[in-house]
Amino acid sequence: MPDDYPPALQETIRGFSRLPGIGKRTAERLALALVDWDAETVRDLGATIHDLPDKLRRCRDCGNLAEAEQCAICRNPRRDSRVVCVVEHARQIPVIERTGRFHGLYHVLGGRLSPLEGVDVDDLNLQPLYARVADLDVQELILATSPDVEGEATASYLADELHRRFEVKLSRLASGVPVGSDLSYADAATMAMALDSRRAV
Amino acid sequence: MPDDYPPALQETIRGFSRLPGIGKRTAERLALALVDWDAETVRDLGATIHDLPDKLRRCRDCGNLAEAEQCAICRNPRRDSRVVCVVEHARQIPVIERTGRFHGLYHVLGGRLSPLEGVDVDDLNLQPLYARVADLDVQELILATSPDVEGEATASYLADELHRRFEVKLSRLASGVPVGSDLSYADAATMAMALDSRRAV
Repeated sequence: MPDDYPPALQETIRGFSRLPGIGKRTAERLALALVDWDAETVRDLGATIHDLPDKLRRCRDCGNLAEAEQCAICRNPRRDSRVVCVVEHARQIPVIERTGRFHGLYHVLGGRLSPLEGVDVDDLNLQPLYARVADLDVQELILATSPDVEGEATASYLADELHRRFEVKLSRLASGVPVGSDLSYADAATMAMALDSRRAV
Repeated sequence: MPDDYPPALQETIRGFSRLPGIGKRTAERLALALVDWDAETVRDLGATIHDLPDKLRRCRDCGNLAEAEQCAICRNPRRDSRVVCVVEHARQIPVIERTGRFHGLYHVLGGRLSPLEGVDVDDLNLQPLYARVADLDVQELILATSPDVEGEATASYLADELHRRFEVKLSRLASGVPVGSDLSYADAATMAMALDSRRAV
């Protein structure tokens, strides 16, 4: 980045380049785009970002992103509180919501067990989950941690703990070849899982 | 975008998606990344963007982006004021600066002649250019408008006007096949220009 840019522009470029997937050149292109916007629109974007940390909180009940004490899902009386889907991160909730197939509640662990990254049981949002299963009449928990080593380990730990404490049905998301994908490019582990879990037709 | 996102996050996503080359999904990914940053870093980025319109101005002399009355290049006493490179937009200056080959001053037109987009002679930053050529002892002007139809028309208009007013050397950037490119993919117009302008070796 040439030093000829005014300092305020250099700082904007540095800020953008901290975002994931945004390299120096893209950050430069984005910052220069702001120069051509009208001042009010730039100020609005700046103010929105500035205020984000103060406006966003975690839902008291499930740990999802919220602007009130409870998130929009926990607040919705039409959601089925008898089924709770346990996810690692709040950002995974919209991925599931977009399917339109799940009408229960969520619980955000805030991570997954990872000895390498120093994340252990005490770092996860577990007590509120146990409290919730006890309080609400939860009948099924979908352990929707990621289908990788750490996600499986987390699901396995959770399954043990939950079975020990409650009479509750537990499930995992199905794994297999992605819908719409070309089988030529399926990796061996996914293909093995797809074969093992094959459905009768 | 699911409505389940808190409004502040939705607004951030909308803001990011106005940036060039940032689609809905990328905007969502960027906004969610902010959620994981520490609050102070998010506030800093927001404040930097918010203050940008008030901090950035146009250099009084050349029209480049500046934080003071004059831009860093015009302020630099080591730049050679006898050569002025005329560009369409301030964002093109760093592209030339990065070469390390140009040590003169710049002049930003603020666009190029485009009847289709309703840009005519009066919309370009021309009078300050003429004043500058008269005031400083300018000996050469590089008309570095883009090598496309509108850029050529603008250069041609400028050449006529400048020749009519001043005894000054005018030049255009060389056009040809890009350095490091594979000739198999050169377009016909570029190849024609490269042939016409071939250098003896």
